Amino acid sequence: MEASAAVDSSASMPASFEVSKRPDTAKLVLNSPSPPSLREELVAVVGKAFRRPRASGDRPPRCAWALTALQCVFPVLQWGRSYTLKSFRSDIMAGLTLASLGIPQSIGYANLAKLDPQYGLYTSVVPPLIYAVMGTSREIAIGPVAVVSLLLSSMIQNIVDPATDPATYRSLVFTVTFLAGVFQVSFGLFRLGFLVDFLSHAAIVGFMGGAAIVIGLQQLKGLLGLSHFTNSTDIVSVIKAVCSALHDPWHPGNFFIGCSFLIFILTTRFIGRRYKKLFWLSAISPLISVVLSTAAVYATRADKHGVKIIQKVTAGLNPSSAKQIHLNGPHSAECAKIAIICAVIALTEAIAVGRSFASIRGYKLDGNKEMLAMGFSNVAGSLSSCYVATGSFSRTAVNFSAGARSTVSNIVMSITVFITLELFMKFLYYTPMAVLASIILSALPGLIDIKEACNIWKVDKMDFVTCLGAFLGVLFGSVEIGLAVAIGISFAKIIIQSLRPQVEILGRLQGTNTFCSIKQYPVACRTPSVLTIRIDTSFMCFINATFIKEEVETSDGKARERIQAVVLDMSSVVNIDTSGLTSLVEIHKELVSLGIQMAISSPGWNAVQKMKVARVVDRIGEDWIFLTVGEAVEACLTEHKGTALEC
Amino acid sequence: MEASAAVDSSASMPASFEVSKRPDTAKLVLNSPSPPSLREELVAVVGKAFRRPRASGDRPPRCAWALTALQCVFPVLQWGRSYTLKSFRSDIMAGLTLASLGIPQSIGYANLAKLDPQYGLYTSVVPPLIYAVMGTSREIAIGPVAVVSLLLSSMIQNIVDPATDPATYRSLVFTVTFLAGVFQVSFGLFRLGFLVDFLSHAAIVGFMGGAAIVIGLQQLKGLLGLSHFTNSTDIVSVIKAVCSALHDPWHPGNFFIGCSFLIFILTTRFIGRRYKKLFWLSAISPLISVVLSTAAVYATRADKHGVKIIQKVTAGLNPSSAKQIHLNGPHSAECAKIAIICAVIALTEAIAVGRSFASIRGYKLDGNKEMLAMGFSNVAGSLSSCYVATGSFSRTAVNFSAGARSTVSNIVMSITVFITLELFMKFLYYTPMAVLASIILSALPGLIDIKEACNIWKVDKMDFVTCLGAFLGVLFGSVEIGLAVAIGISFAKIIIQSLRPQVEILGRLQGTNTFCSIKQYPVACRTPSVLTIRIDTSFMCFINATFIKEEVETSDGKARERIQAVVLDMSSVVNIDTSGLTSLVEIHKELVSLGIQMAISSPGWNAVQKMKVARVVDRIGEDWIFLTVGEAVEACLTEHKGTALEC
Repeated sequence: MEASAAVDSSASMPASFEVSKRPDTAKLVLNSPSPPSLREELVAVVGKAFRRPRASGDRPPRCAWALTALQCVFPVLQWGRSYTLKSFRSDIMAGLTLASLGIPQSIGYANLAKLDPQYGLYTSVVPPLIYAVMGTSREIAIGPVAVVSLLLSSMIQNIVDPATDPATYRSLVFTVTFLAGVFQVSFGLFRLGFLVDFLSHAAIVGFMGGAAIVIGLQQLKGLLGLSHFTNSTDIVSVIKAVCSALHDPWHPGNFFIGCSFLIFILTTRFIGRRYKKLFWLSAISPLISVVLSTAAVYATRADKHGVKIIQKVTAGLNPSSAKQIHLNGPHSAECAKIAIICAVIALTEAIAVGRSFASIRGYKLDGNKEMLAMGFSNVAGSLSSCYVATGSFSRTAVNFSAGARSTVSNIVMSITVFITLELFMKFLYYTPMAVLASIILSALPGLIDIKEACNIWKVDKMDFVTCLGAFLGVLFGSVEIGLAVAIGISFAKIIIQSLRPQVEILGRLQGTNTFCSIKQYPVACRTPSVLTIRIDTSFMCFINATFIKEEVETSDGKARERIQAVVLDMSSVVNIDTSGLTSLVEIHKELVSLGIQMAISSPGWNAVQKMKVARVVDRIGEDWIFLTVGEAVEACLTEHKGTALEC
Repeated sequence: MEASAAVDSSASMPASFEVSKRPDTAKLVLNSPSPPSLREELVAVVGKAFRRPRASGDRPPRCAWALTALQCVFPVLQWGRSYTLKSFRSDIMAGLTLASLGIPQSIGYANLAKLDPQYGLYTSVVPPLIYAVMGTSREIAIGPVAVVSLLLSSMIQNIVDPATDPATYRSLVFTVTFLAGVFQVSFGLFRLGFLVDFLSHAAIVGFMGGAAIVIGLQQLKGLLGLSHFTNSTDIVSVIKAVCSALHDPWHPGNFFIGCSFLIFILTTRFIGRRYKKLFWLSAISPLISVVLSTAAVYATRADKHGVKIIQKVTAGLNPSSAKQIHLNGPHSAECAKIAIICAVIALTEAIAVGRSFASIRGYKLDGNKEMLAMGFSNVAGSLSSCYVATGSFSRTAVNFSAGARSTVSNIVMSITVFITLELFMKFLYYTPMAVLASIILSALPGLIDIKEACNIWKVDKMDFVTCLGAFLGVLFGSVEIGLAVAIGISFAKIIIQSLRPQVEILGRLQGTNTFCSIKQYPVACRTPSVLTIRIDTSFMCFINATFIKEEVETSDGKARERIQAVVLDMSSVVNIDTSGLTSLVEIHKELVSLGIQMAISSPGWNAVQKMKVARVVDRIGEDWIFLTVGEAVEACLTEHKGTALEC
């Protein structure tokens, strides 16, 4: 009907033919309002970043506003008012459990960071206190963690050797900690939370797995009681170092102590997992190990028979380290580089830990506030002889299981560690190094997530490549190489996805007006004489414009001769750049030269705006831009029937 | 009707309720065949890359196959058979016109590349001959070009100073040329044509503009007859050098010669553009300038009065330079870096030039064959004292206007240059440097495309930033910095586009089943109680997964309470990674906790496959995945009415 009416009028008044053919909705595409300009978008992004979250309802008076602002910076003011004695009792228990795990772990991690044991304990005093008043997570336990300790030592020892010049090494550690804190604060202030996302889940799984193995290998030094060891962290150097060290005489006492306590800790953990009520056993087993092994060594004077002990211990509260921070030193550029890596890794770990526990308890973590809290904790820490602290997975899990209700458990832990520093430090003199190694080793299985790696392999092969790249990079190169490989592969994935978008031929589902890919839905039927192609990229730009042009021009090569019209479904194309526009014009030119009509359906908001400005719409013809594929195909069929009848 | 039937059955048999609600088409989403795996895709890509284009029809016999293969490598065998005497006459005229432009330009560009004049002429002899038998473009004119000459000299003089050690400098130039040829050949063999696309159109406009100004500034040395000049190319250093040089006595004779011939050349070009028949005047004006100025200097012995002349000329055919190529030299890594930059820039220019003229004549350029042809030209060139040659825009335009029919015009030009080298070299002794500068200057306006830059500004602000970045980078930094800035901004653009995808609320167009963004189409009406959200990215991955999750969870905050269901339109989401899947699960969890039903419509092929493998489909429920937004909304409304009636 429509077609024959069109033919009647087409000879005398082609303009009205065009109008009659065109559905009303198609006009909407070209008459849509202008999308926000780049400037407006930037203003919106910046405005959104600095908009303060406000309680719903009326605007509060000024003094109340000040309180809200204070509460915003110090969430303790918010939850503190509803804090009950019952919660406090739970928090005290959780804090003490936490301290019993945290004290031996902190000493071990300080050893991993190539610092004296007290620095690990210092790091468990100041940062948790700051975090307790500023953080939004209720379960997270702050302190030194394995991966950051490894990162620090492996990168800073490239600048200065901790064995020969411990003072300079410490000063660099504090400088890095200070800078890392400053970076974290600025990430929070400028709402750069997305930086944490740059390390994808797959990359973290691989990176953590690699780091755990590297940390485990480093413990061979303590476990075997070796005096000479390599400074490199890659598996090849470490195995070489161990092999050459085993040629020298070594003392199996260390290995015996380490292994027996490792078995003890792992057994208690197994029991704790099996019988939920006994979980405290796994929490305090490291402390028991330290106490028992120290007592045993002291009693048998095993240190005279080759068992390595800590020896270097200093009692007392955190000394000030403000004077050791050198921002204008000769290594400040390297320090800044190390600091930004540590800042991002520490935040990634803390936010991952915080989010997973927040989601169990059913509340939300404010990523930007977390960054501020972490940043201030580290800045304050760097001024009081602490190194980079963050949320630890193993300790947070213990804190959660022990029933922590708020960050008060962190305060309790901090006070307990402080008391230890004041009173019990001298007992650590006889603690064997091997037992520290066994405590670190016992924390590592939690970092290696083979099940998740298998899962990633099953779901997404490219993600698995990222994971494997990070893992092998850390294992055979260094921590930095692993990170660089992971980030490189992750971004390459995005570029590759943009580089080679799919260009799908569409078909109609019988009895509907729905068009879908004939590959994905083999039941879809192609419309004879009209080729419908969907461009499957959200950004048609310089790296894929030529490819898309070639795909469109060559797709369906055999049946090309019988085709009278090509409909480009651009519903996925959100944005387009000048190269993309040029390609569209060239596709149009090519199709016109072959006598094929081209129609475009539902381009995205920015895309249609740019097509108008660049006059691509004028070239293609306003009448050949449609809102839906169905309308475009209908119009092409009508036009084609009209021409066929005319001939 | 449907709703009440549902309510009747829902109490007794919820399963049949689900079935009755669900349209047939929805099953298709989950029952689609598996998309090609990563391995299959890789095999397809590699297979496609190495598939030889074959003539349609039957498989030819073996000897014919060999001929096809030969024709594929040497297109001359294909068009040579239909080559006519008439075409040959046109090509001879075009070749001679080309030579009259090419000879003075080649000498000038050799000067820009800090080589003796004969090397420019050598480069106009061998590469055009090789290209003539291997290239697929019919109009392109091969030889030295301004930008590549600048690139070579500005980068190689950082290794060795051409003024103090010309022999080593030349040997590095030939090594770079050889490596650039090898890179180009391998790009062609491995079908890496897309590398040329990495420099977007906007970046090329900015880069060429900046390079033209830098080249122009370098000509001040010749134009003012300065003896001392800077080796840096940035505008600040050059202006400083000119200012300090002007304090010394200088000879206005140079400036006078340069300016008068520049005016002469520009006037003839203006005439040539105005009267198409006189275009040959603009083509031969550089040669006339050289002849006239040389004669004038010889007659007046102006070189005794401060006019700088070429002096250093060597007659005779290209000598072999195979022994000067040092692949294992101390600078081989730097040479490889320079070579890859030169290879890409030279290819970008040649393919841009070739494509634009091919599109005028209505045929297609095979990018990969072009790369092979260019690569072999340069390899052969590097063995015969040539530096990097490529397609020049100005000479190709002259070749086209002079009526070239095939690459035979290149052969004619090559022979003419060869004769010049043999017979007329000694006449170049008295050619003033200033006239070479004026010839180069006259070619520059073609490289600065202000109109296009304005156009880019109008159409795409981000593209303009790329353009400006490349321009300023070249002008104030160096050629390499300009390139790095352009490529950096271009890729950052893609990452930013992926980082912050739009998450649009959809509405239904009244009277249709079409859903579209309510921002883009304000007439679209939102369905009450069902929130429809479209995720506007083709790759839901680690850098945007958290952002999308937050946007979905917070979008439409005010009306959230009245919402009973959320429909996620994933039709644009072609692919998803593990982070994206996690986000989907978390969105579902969050919505379930708020008592809101979630439905997904038309995810892409790979996305739906991964959702099945990762069991995300099971979590969301197979019954809540639909083929179209309309069906999803309908199902949500039915379910909601059902619940409402039940209550």
